[in-house]
Amino acid sequence: MATDRSVLLEFSIAPTGKGESLSSYISRIVDIVDRSGLDYRLTSMGTILEGSWDECMAIVTRCFRELERDCGRISLNLKVDYRAGASGRLEGKIESVEQRLGHPVKR
Amino acid sequence: MATDRSVLLEFSIAPTGKGESLSSYISRIVDIVDRSGLDYRLTSMGTILEGSWDECMAIVTRCFRELERDCGRISLNLKVDYRAGASGRLEGKIESVEQRLGHPVKR
Amino acid sequence: MATDRSVLLEFSIAPTGKGESLSSYISRIVDIVDRSGLDYRLTSMGTILEGSWDECMAIVTRCFRELERDCGRISLNLKVDYRAGASGRLEGKIESVEQRLGHPVKR
Amino acid sequence: MATDRSVLLEFSIAPTGKGESLSSYISRIVDIVDRSGLDYRLTSMGTILEGSWDECMAIVTRCFRELERDCGRISLNLKVDYRAGASGRLEGKIESVEQRLGHPVKR
Repeated sequence: MATDRSVLLEFSIAPTGKGESLSSYISRIVDIVDRSGLDYRLTSMGTILEGSWDECMAIVTRCFRELERDCGRISLNLKVDYRAGASGRLEGKIESVEQRLGHPVKR
Repeated sequence: MATDRSVLLEFSIAPTGKGESLSSYISRIVDIVDRSGLDYRLTSMGTILEGSWDECMAIVTRCFRELERDCGRISLNLKVDYRAGASGRLEGKIESVEQRLGHPVKR
Repeated sequence: MATDRSVLLEFSIAPTGKGESLSSYISRIVDIVDRSGLDYRLTSMGTILEGSWDECMAIVTRCFRELERDCGRISLNLKVDYRAGASGRLEGKIESVEQRLGHPVKR
Repeated sequence: MATDRSVLLEFSIAPTGKGESLSSYISRIVDIVDRSGLDYRLTSMGTILEGSWDECMAIVTRCFRELERDCGRISLNLKVDYRAGASGRLEGKIESVEQRLGHPVKR
């Protein structure tokens, strides 16, 4: 039961040199994330995972291995916000801002 | 009418050394974005703007100036995805992935 | 004379969909930076500028406008470390680590 | 002997809420990198590793575990440039730009 959800990890990964349209590659990534069982959010700029360090990093590695199969050059950007003992931050951080502002924001 | 919305810009900005809880600072940033009139989305890892290069960068500068007033050290991360002639990508990029996968994703 | 060098700004900018080799585009960027008069360092992963917020951001905008001329899609990553009143940090931050470790590091 | 050096990985990692001066934490990170045996460069904005995906990611994980011991909140930024079959890019990418420009740049 003691699931560790102390890590929020946002990443975007894409091939370089495969044309301007990347949605076929991104769909392969999102499919891996969606099947992983970890909680996540897809945004217009990346994917945000919530879990333990090892869980989140394992998914990023799976996504890299997937693109490595047919992409000669790959670019990855990744950002982690770790907070010991935290959980539910995919929504909690946004709600905290809404409470301070006293009104909903666009999400 | 020919509004330029070719830029998606995601950014996160926060003071260093002001304690572990940052939501009071983030709220000041989101307030600036929310009043700006630009379309945006708040995520658990940052804020995504859609507009022209100059519009998006002007907002980032306003946010930096806001924190500069009382923060001795500031960290900013920023990512731009520019696509000539594009618009509506805050939702469009996610919908494009959903269409390829044939089912909705978590957003 | 009181030059403001409180901002360290690292950025990388490149077209998407122009092939795997990007050095011709990167050279156009570095040329702009090199002629700007701002102090900078080129690394294998980006360019680091030292100056005021406005100076650094003006160069990033010039680089974006340069690529916008012939690139339909552009990706930019940017990171700022602002410290009020600081200067000489392109070398100073590295030297500070070396002093703590008691030996030189690879740079 | 067939060392895989296809990954350039730049990262910066630091605690949030431990004051404005971070060099004591950064020194612990650089010490791990320096003893790892992987080739690297320290810049004013982060550390760049060259190696295989697994080697580079293992070092990042070691650095995270090191800070996790006494830091309640940690921020990590990471960027990967993978190129199949490549090596020597810590210097090679800079030299390639210098050749195109026809003169040395600041590094």
